[in-house]
Amino acid sequence: MVIDCHGHYTTVPREAPAFREAQIAGRSDAAALLQAATAVTDDQIRESVKPQLAFQFARGTDVTIFSPRAAGMAHHLGDAGANRQWARLSNDLVHRVCTLFPKQFVGVCQLPQSVGGSPADCVGELERCVNELGFIGCNLNPDPSGGHWTAPPLTDRAWYPLYEKLVELDVPAMVHVSASCNPNFHATGAHYLNADTTAFMQFLLADLFRDFPTLRFVIPHGGGAVPYHWGRYRGLAQDLKRPPLADLIRDNVFFDTCVYHSPGIELLLKVVPADNILFGSEMVGAVRGIDPETGHYFDDTKRYIDGVAWMNAADKGKIFEGNVRKVYPRINGKIPS
Amino acid sequence: MVIDCHGHYTTVPREAPAFREAQIAGRSDAAALLQAATAVTDDQIRESVKPQLAFQFARGTDVTIFSPRAAGMAHHLGDAGANRQWARLSNDLVHRVCTLFPKQFVGVCQLPQSVGGSPADCVGELERCVNELGFIGCNLNPDPSGGHWTAPPLTDRAWYPLYEKLVELDVPAMVHVSASCNPNFHATGAHYLNADTTAFMQFLLADLFRDFPTLRFVIPHGGGAVPYHWGRYRGLAQDLKRPPLADLIRDNVFFDTCVYHSPGIELLLKVVPADNILFGSEMVGAVRGIDPETGHYFDDTKRYIDGVAWMNAADKGKIFEGNVRKVYPRINGKIPS
Repeated sequence: MVIDCHGHYTTVPREAPAFREAQIAGRSDAAALLQAATAVTDDQIRESVKPQLAFQFARGTDVTIFSPRAAGMAHHLGDAGANRQWARLSNDLVHRVCTLFPKQFVGVCQLPQSVGGSPADCVGELERCVNELGFIGCNLNPDPSGGHWTAPPLTDRAWYPLYEKLVELDVPAMVHVSASCNPNFHATGAHYLNADTTAFMQFLLADLFRDFPTLRFVIPHGGGAVPYHWGRYRGLAQDLKRPPLADLIRDNVFFDTCVYHSPGIELLLKVVPADNILFGSEMVGAVRGIDPETGHYFDDTKRYIDGVAWMNAADKGKIFEGNVRKVYPRINGKIPS
Repeated sequence: MVIDCHGHYTTVPREAPAFREAQIAGRSDAAALLQAATAVTDDQIRESVKPQLAFQFARGTDVTIFSPRAAGMAHHLGDAGANRQWARLSNDLVHRVCTLFPKQFVGVCQLPQSVGGSPADCVGELERCVNELGFIGCNLNPDPSGGHWTAPPLTDRAWYPLYEKLVELDVPAMVHVSASCNPNFHATGAHYLNADTTAFMQFLLADLFRDFPTLRFVIPHGGGAVPYHWGRYRGLAQDLKRPPLADLIRDNVFFDTCVYHSPGIELLLKVVPADNILFGSEMVGAVRGIDPETGHYFDDTKRYIDGVAWMNAADKGKIFEGNVRKVYPRINGKIPS
């Protein structure tokens, strides 16, 4: 079985962003638009995920761990109340996809973070999604300011109330920023990768996993710059008298495979322990075209992994399925192996 | 010949940072400490660069393009006047190294950037360094705020006065941030790599090199996350109707080889055209230890390149020497080939 740990509902019916726009603008039609977004039909939902289902079929992936559109979270735009309403709608729409296609999609939730808000604000929506909607994880934005980086590092105790709940529910967080409102940072071409790199270095520097031995983070987009600079990080860890990287990440930090060319995937699989890699493609995501050099979609990452001749089937099995089940254990109650 | 395009004067005599500390604190002994830093003896200078000379000898590199300590620039700490004084001292000390060891070191200057300052502030010091001290390039900080990213993108017209001078003098800029005062960003483990990634995406999005066809930037640390995500960038360029990456960077954007393990160097050499790679090690820099897996220094990047069996001698010659001479043409008047 092949489980894709990283998919966003980028094709959500237009009623959802239409509500968000009105909500943020403070327009009087926001309430009506919220109602319209809540009232989209099952047929609209089915229609909206046709591209994902077609890619799953064409590429031979079985299940997608599915969350609201990352850029759409835009935690910098609303206050805690507005973002709670928006997270709730976004998560409910993902839940409807998962209910209509229970074998193809399992839910991961957006959190109602906000600038200056408290991580504790997120606990209620996380509990609702896990306990009531059957979601198996969340996306955690390390920079709710959208490119100004005003929140404390992920290893700061301010985040601990959320981590306590993650541990209690036994669900992981994918570290995933949203849109950038800083003109220096293109979202998918800079901000996303920078956040991945930044989070990893924060984890390297602190003893967060001594406080939370079972807390698990997935760093998406192949870990940003980290595997390419694995020697740099091994050397920094050594200079700073930190544990060796393999020990540091073993039970707590995982990379997905959203790297859109063979040489990058080769590098990732070569330097990062196979136990710490989860299959991901982020299909219908950041890069939607076909690579003229291969004739295949850039984001068809399964092909690149299939093409790595030197990795054995057991390790590929971990990447495609086993590790995902280990990191997101609640999937086992929903998708039998 | 092997020319290392990326070395900082990290071993500068302690009189220099002692002055800077007093200057930033506004202490009354700052003037005396400036005098003391200016008065360090030639013997002190010779002693200070013994580690670099020993590494050059041991590793078989001939020349280092040498600039003030990157983290020491700390443009966020002073105003334009203070930073001009500090840049001047830092550049003068590099110049003394280059004068004492003219076959081993060639200078690149620190610019007196500041938060809210104008790139035009830098033109005078750049001219002085190139025309009077014989420097062959500069380091340009895309984020003088030290991790808050408040300056405009490098493709903004606000930077054009500086670019006009770079073009006129025919010297390149290495895009290099300094220390981070944002607790989210570890300097060498996150901020440096993020800046490299960010700058590349800015270049991808704009037509800067249509306005300045001969402007040249070196993106250090192997290009941050970029080569690892080369497929992502090829795909983004295609989706955004931008030129193919090889065309976009051809005469204008270059990566150094400061990547501290073999798999990373292999990837860099595989995906980036050989014409756009310059040898660099940043030795006595970010990572100072010996890799227990190889028994060699992490930052001995020449070894990794030497070990790439599939690249021919002509391409390696470009990386070790030819491209450096092309990007920093003023080196030719100082170091005969």
